[in-house]
Amino acid sequence: MSATALPATMTAIAISRPGGPEVLVPEPRPVPVPGPGQLLVKVAAAGVNRPDVMQRKGLYPPPIGASDLPGLEIAGTVVALGPDAGGWRAGDEVCALVSGGGYAEYCLAEAGHALPRPSGLSAAEAAALPETTFTVWHNVIERGGLTAGEILLVHGGSSGIGTTAIQLAKARGARVVVTCGSDDKCAACLKLGADRAINYRTHDFVAEVKAFAAGRGADVILDMVGGDYIERNYEAAAPDGRIVQIAFQGGFKATVDFRRLMLKRLTHTGSTLRSRSDAFKTALARAVATQVWPLVEAGRLRPVMDRAFPLVEAAAAHARMESGEHIGKIVLLA
Amino acid sequence: MSATALPATMTAIAISRPGGPEVLVPEPRPVPVPGPGQLLVKVAAAGVNRPDVMQRKGLYPPPIGASDLPGLEIAGTVVALGPDAGGWRAGDEVCALVSGGGYAEYCLAEAGHALPRPSGLSAAEAAALPETTFTVWHNVIERGGLTAGEILLVHGGSSGIGTTAIQLAKARGARVVVTCGSDDKCAACLKLGADRAINYRTHDFVAEVKAFAAGRGADVILDMVGGDYIERNYEAAAPDGRIVQIAFQGGFKATVDFRRLMLKRLTHTGSTLRSRSDAFKTALARAVATQVWPLVEAGRLRPVMDRAFPLVEAAAAHARMESGEHIGKIVLLA
Repeated sequence: MSATALPATMTAIAISRPGGPEVLVPEPRPVPVPGPGQLLVKVAAAGVNRPDVMQRKGLYPPPIGASDLPGLEIAGTVVALGPDAGGWRAGDEVCALVSGGGYAEYCLAEAGHALPRPSGLSAAEAAALPETTFTVWHNVIERGGLTAGEILLVHGGSSGIGTTAIQLAKARGARVVVTCGSDDKCAACLKLGADRAINYRTHDFVAEVKAFAAGRGADVILDMVGGDYIERNYEAAAPDGRIVQIAFQGGFKATVDFRRLMLKRLTHTGSTLRSRSDAFKTALARAVATQVWPLVEAGRLRPVMDRAFPLVEAAAAHARMESGEHIGKIVLLA
Repeated sequence: MSATALPATMTAIAISRPGGPEVLVPEPRPVPVPGPGQLLVKVAAAGVNRPDVMQRKGLYPPPIGASDLPGLEIAGTVVALGPDAGGWRAGDEVCALVSGGGYAEYCLAEAGHALPRPSGLSAAEAAALPETTFTVWHNVIERGGLTAGEILLVHGGSSGIGTTAIQLAKARGARVVVTCGSDDKCAACLKLGADRAINYRTHDFVAEVKAFAAGRGADVILDMVGGDYIERNYEAAAPDGRIVQIAFQGGFKATVDFRRLMLKRLTHTGSTLRSRSDAFKTALARAVATQVWPLVEAGRLRPVMDRAFPLVEAAAAHARMESGEHIGKIVLLA
């Protein structure tokens, strides 16, 4: 397929102004043109993520140079290539981490940030993989250093991140404890292989983790809650434990007793994916391709899907994410 | 020298009850008998450290199995050896990290936690080395990962830890910024090689560090203050910076905005030396012997000495430490 066969305009979902889901409106946009090292992908499906919601509210401006459209991961077909976009050909089925612009019929992706669509996965499933696999691999394995036999505690076990973390950690021989907000979500996590699921509305996660770990605690904690969880994570962590902060859904400010950090030699760190350099993301994509994709191909790691919405119903998709009722990933179908 | 030539009792400084410096009183104690892997050292000098003060106040109980006497580092002569205390002979001049009992005429040391007294150093100087060199090596180099060209920020630059950190970091090619509580202390740190010394009473260390680092920040921060320094350390740190907490002289509780921890991918960790395993301390002593002792022998790292007090005047030594007027190490001479 040659680039000249492409339409000049496409439908995209723009953020008309900061606000609720209703500010997400379809509008015509020019089809982007791939620059050096870039692919143009005809989007089949795009993942919906928390940062998209933050961006919609005006709380998370896109990085300089990124599209103003929301959408951080896509699956689809390569339809055009910029200069030096090696390794791919028009017609390839891919999924990719993108710096924005996923909520559209066409989207640019760095060639190095794309991965082949795993066999046996639908486009919707493939679009649900990049954010969670890149985030979990980097934060749990590279940053948290989780090893076989260790205990991983994941808050938000039934989220896209949580369900990926459960499967990846179990596949690598760790034991996994999760927290969730309902018994249904706990059941879903246990079905995915979690060794213990704690309903945080009815149980104290610190006591439950200590009981599971025979008094010791969790070796790695993946936390997207923050707020008063920070001090409780310090309590729930084992000596030499690593706590990795990937969001602050419960608040970024907290009053904390830091003694345990020193006495247990904890490591509290964190990261965000979007702001990282292209080179970092390319290296991470390579690690995911070699370490995580084989687990996907073998059926040992599957994206847990909540619901798919048509692209033009992005507002409804955001409303569902904000309801907190979903289990697994929400995607848009272009 | 055979063990039978030793006296049965010795003078030691005991903590008669929790309280001020005056609770430190000389009393007769049996000379300890070295067990497997232990040396008996006739103490020539013992270092005075902050944890001794905490222990005196009743806030830092000695670990199980340790002497109830204060004193975490000594220099002196090996006078007896337990079984399997390999590598040493009676008559050897050593300094050693000990788990307690340094404020006495005789003290037990694990053979693996002793190092030869560097040539050209007095016993008082040698007694000033173990706590600071072990602590700085582990926390700045092993835990903080400071490398050549990076910027180290040390709070309490004129303390024993601070003056050691300045010299060690400079010898390894890092740039060093310190904070101190007076212009005199700042001058002492600059003389030792610090690139920039900030009087925290008259200047904002966050702004000064940013200015020194051309807007970037410190790559490693060694902090014994805590309290409101914790959030300010997050501000003063460079992206991917490491903050290592070794005490909480300003308080262990703080209200902190944790966003920078995630957005700059900081690592906040910490450790205490005393509670670590014998095996850990033996490995650390080996690292110090091979990496730090050559710098001492070459005159590139010297303990900065404040004052020496006779053993029986331990109370005066503690009063001086608590005055905050000292620059460098305070030691007791047995």
